[in-house]
Amino acid sequence: MAKEESDIFQFKRPGIAVDVVLFTIKNDDLKVGLIQRQDEPYFGKFALPGRFVRYEETIEDTARTALKQKGGINSSGVFLEQLYTFGSNLERDTRIRTISIVYYGLVESSKIDFQQGNLFTWYSVYDLPKLAFDHKEIIDYAVNRLRGKIWETDFAFQLMPDEFTLTELQKAYEIILGKKLDKRNFRKKIAELQILKDLKKKKQEGPHRPAALYSFLRKG
Amino acid sequence: MAKEESDIFQFKRPGIAVDVVLFTIKNDDLKVGLIQRQDEPYFGKFALPGRFVRYEETIEDTARTALKQKGGINSSGVFLEQLYTFGSNLERDTRIRTISIVYYGLVESSKIDFQQGNLFTWYSVYDLPKLAFDHKEIIDYAVNRLRGKIWETDFAFQLMPDEFTLTELQKAYEIILGKKLDKRNFRKKIAELQILKDLKKKKQEGPHRPAALYSFLRKG
Repeated sequence: MAKEESDIFQFKRPGIAVDVVLFTIKNDDLKVGLIQRQDEPYFGKFALPGRFVRYEETIEDTARTALKQKGGINSSGVFLEQLYTFGSNLERDTRIRTISIVYYGLVESSKIDFQQGNLFTWYSVYDLPKLAFDHKEIIDYAVNRLRGKIWETDFAFQLMPDEFTLTELQKAYEIILGKKLDKRNFRKKIAELQILKDLKKKKQEGPHRPAALYSFLRKG
Repeated sequence: MAKEESDIFQFKRPGIAVDVVLFTIKNDDLKVGLIQRQDEPYFGKFALPGRFVRYEETIEDTARTALKQKGGINSSGVFLEQLYTFGSNLERDTRIRTISIVYYGLVESSKIDFQQGNLFTWYSVYDLPKLAFDHKEIIDYAVNRLRGKIWETDFAFQLMPDEFTLTELQKAYEIILGKKLDKRNFRKKIAELQILKDLKKKKQEGPHRPAALYSFLRKG
């Protein structure tokens, strides 16, 4: 055992990277941010923004730096959560055996602070281009987690403006879940979750009577 | 960007390890398996079984090899799930900056197949010895996850014998949750989960009338 422990500097270390799945809702569609690779392997193919973890950098910092350097996004306002670490496929990167710690987050698309020279594009999760590495698999995993979490928490508040109607919230849930929801059941579930604050004001939605506006209780 | 991509072989790579939090219930207590370190750093201190990820090894294999080599445990029957990847504390290992992918699992203590020369000891999560690295923090995180999951799934079936009474199951839940549960609420919740199969036979429990025996629907 002593031998094994002291071996760390002897054996070849895998590469360790962070990739970020950033979701938004835009044009009534669940979208994920992709960048087009400017280098081999997978030159020209789309990929999640990612980066190898530097020795003196926390993995959370690696995620935010990837968003900034690859996506041109100032991520300081972006909520990121660790999703999963992919390390079972030894061939996922052709350069070096790489383990990927994946973060995911939601952002209201209007709030993204694109910086100059960004290569970031929003793609529908339902209509993805050909992706580099195992990024298709990673995105599918992230979509499933997002769907699993939507009723558990107010995670979705990241996607909504400060004030919204129940119709707008239902729409966002439908887009994430990829299916229509019954209006009455939706309102019942949301009420049970106790995540909304009634703002005691109304918004005109089309020709209908004005709809009540809400915000998330825990937001801000 | 091309420069950054081609830099992977230039910069210093962090170490990447896997640690395993293996839980069991023994003597009416939630216990975790620890090994006593035979090497620096933290010589003589207790730690989770862990191992650096080899280049040609999946992270799941690393976890199972750690259980085998450090714990003397044949893990083929042990259900392991990825818990979290700890990579925010740059100082967690004094030898090399190390990111730890943590797996956790539950095992029925009688089923552990200890191999020769094992150094594995079960410690109560409520009375841990002084631990190496950040392993106390990792165990706390794992206990919280376990408690969060207990009502969601039949995850706990890993801990139970093939046949058990509702009283025995409630006891296991109480040990994991660290608190007493109301018998009626417990039985109602378990019924809602629809995870049990009534075996249509009885077991004598002390001087009371015989109790119905159950198994998990999905087990095996």
